[in-house]
Amino acid sequence: MTRIDAQTIEDIAIGAALLGTGGGGDPYLGKLMALQAVKECGPVTLISPDEVPDEAVVVPTAMMGAPTVLIEKVPNGEEVFRAFNGLKNYLSKDIFATMPIEAGGVNSMIPIAVAARLGIPLVDCDGMGRAFPELQMVTFHLYGVSATPMVIADEKGNTIILETISNFWTESLARNATVVMGGSVMLSIYPMTGKVLKKAGIKNIVSYSAKIGKVIREARQRGENPAEALLKATGGFELFKGKVVDVLRRTEGGFARGEAKIEGIEEYKGEVLQVKFQNENLVAIRGERVVATVPDLICIVNLETAIPITTEGLRYGNRVLVLGIPCDEKWRTPEGLETVGPRYFGYDLDYVPVEVLAQGGEKQ
Amino acid sequence: MTRIDAQTIEDIAIGAALLGTGGGGDPYLGKLMALQAVKECGPVTLISPDEVPDEAVVVPTAMMGAPTVLIEKVPNGEEVFRAFNGLKNYLSKDIFATMPIEAGGVNSMIPIAVAARLGIPLVDCDGMGRAFPELQMVTFHLYGVSATPMVIADEKGNTIILETISNFWTESLARNATVVMGGSVMLSIYPMTGKVLKKAGIKNIVSYSAKIGKVIREARQRGENPAEALLKATGGFELFKGKVVDVLRRTEGGFARGEAKIEGIEEYKGEVLQVKFQNENLVAIRGERVVATVPDLICIVNLETAIPITTEGLRYGNRVLVLGIPCDEKWRTPEGLETVGPRYFGYDLDYVPVEVLAQGGEKQ
Repeated sequence: MTRIDAQTIEDIAIGAALLGTGGGGDPYLGKLMALQAVKECGPVTLISPDEVPDEAVVVPTAMMGAPTVLIEKVPNGEEVFRAFNGLKNYLSKDIFATMPIEAGGVNSMIPIAVAARLGIPLVDCDGMGRAFPELQMVTFHLYGVSATPMVIADEKGNTIILETISNFWTESLARNATVVMGGSVMLSIYPMTGKVLKKAGIKNIVSYSAKIGKVIREARQRGENPAEALLKATGGFELFKGKVVDVLRRTEGGFARGEAKIEGIEEYKGEVLQVKFQNENLVAIRGERVVATVPDLICIVNLETAIPITTEGLRYGNRVLVLGIPCDEKWRTPEGLETVGPRYFGYDLDYVPVEVLAQGGEKQ
Repeated sequence: MTRIDAQTIEDIAIGAALLGTGGGGDPYLGKLMALQAVKECGPVTLISPDEVPDEAVVVPTAMMGAPTVLIEKVPNGEEVFRAFNGLKNYLSKDIFATMPIEAGGVNSMIPIAVAARLGIPLVDCDGMGRAFPELQMVTFHLYGVSATPMVIADEKGNTIILETISNFWTESLARNATVVMGGSVMLSIYPMTGKVLKKAGIKNIVSYSAKIGKVIREARQRGENPAEALLKATGGFELFKGKVVDVLRRTEGGFARGEAKIEGIEEYKGEVLQVKFQNENLVAIRGERVVATVPDLICIVNLETAIPITTEGLRYGNRVLVLGIPCDEKWRTPEGLETVGPRYFGYDLDYVPVEVLAQGGEKQ
């Protein structure tokens, strides 16, 4: 059990934005929500999944939709509580704690705000160990946990409760509702017991995010190269260094889809890296060679500061470092790869671990 | 209080299909559902709104979607009970009775099946006195009744509970969900007390439907012209007689939209009537002259049998009689016309009552 205070929130916002691999929402916006909540209600208690009683119910809270929309359609702050309390009433059960569904600038922060304002603990766990664009793309899904009953709330005051026959139906119905509701909404989803959570979740994601943020912050304070510290802290691989020369980005079907083109600098001079994304970065291709794919993490950070850049934040002229970080082992199983491997996203590629690719391994 | 038995169901199916003005679903399909329920569970008790205690809760049940879809995607019969019981559980209240939301081949029958199987009364009342394509197009809406909480259930087992800030949001969210769920779903909607119902509903619609069906049946049995009996029983006006020569019909946005072209016969020879529809018939234009518009009822029936023909049943070569029937007075108020007048449907026309137009009244 540890405390999440304002400094920790700053660190988590940065670390989670990195793990968000371009998605998961803008860290500035998410941070403000969490900071305000902690300022008004005091620090949040972070507990390990092992501290959750087996029979206690935990409900993740999150934003759903295109992060590009969230920047302009700012939440009013009340809808996530309507989503959370709506599910509590619907289940007629006390909810012991909340937690993130994924790592990301907004989606790591919303559960902190919820925990602070409701005076409940935050569980150091999520369902991705990174961010993914669709609701069934969680390790809970691999363990047969239903996303429903779930509650969707918009900033206007509309609320939807879903009970579905599969997590794919949940994704389809919720995604559509999100579009009708204006492109981004708040959720309470995947209610589950402590017993299930211990088995199905990815542990330590909040503290890991905080650690990443802290490493970057401290390296910068010491005047050291934060990128090197970042690679060391994450076990990640440098994939590319360059300048963003083109970003194609469209908000469609409730997602921010597109691709970025990065022209190499320093030892990558004369080369080009393409990064394709659907909210999150999915595939990185250096020249003709695939250098990383989902479910491994493809992270784009500012070359000097190592501050992560989200999909919607990518701009022409950004000088960036692109990293590949190995994903959680749960995603490297056949079921995991079926759910979030490159083929699910429509790429005709077998998954090869980023550490193999980075060592000049198997050619695609 | 009267009993609805198999013969009454046959009559209601025909009468309600007429009042459905082309929409409200296929009378054959709806009839089968109601007949089977009454056969298994016994006749249904039909009560007047005045017999509903002021504090008792009544919940209309209905099909939503394009009737063109319902023909191919037949309900499994269980989903309407999931919708009804879902709302009962959500409200944590006993539901005293059900009722139709509109008159129509399917939507007058579903509440009979629900009442039979659950052993509750059916209230002789609806919210339209006819059929309309959108959820806010009910007299309840004019009296400020909220459509939500409502429950949507599909035949696959998915359920959605909506709580919205307006009946327009309900229409938008429910329509979209209907499309995602395959184009037609079952609903429980507009929960309201007896007190509200007495004020906001359109009374006697079920018994009126039964009367219309009976008049047609008996005229045919006596070898008389059923069309004449029909005009007399409804206070309707003959608008046209002719042969259907063209039907444009497309299922889009969860509606069956299109238009029918009818070439005149007998005294209408050489003339053409156009009927435009969105699930229901909206506007009838004879040559250049508008002869009837919503909210008045534009009904197309078989010329010989007076059996109503739904939008999805219209075929090349059908010999038809087109009737105009005055709508309920509640629709002729400024609020009523704003909700269901021709301008709401995108026609640049002032509403003129069908009885005025039929007497060669104001030209459009």
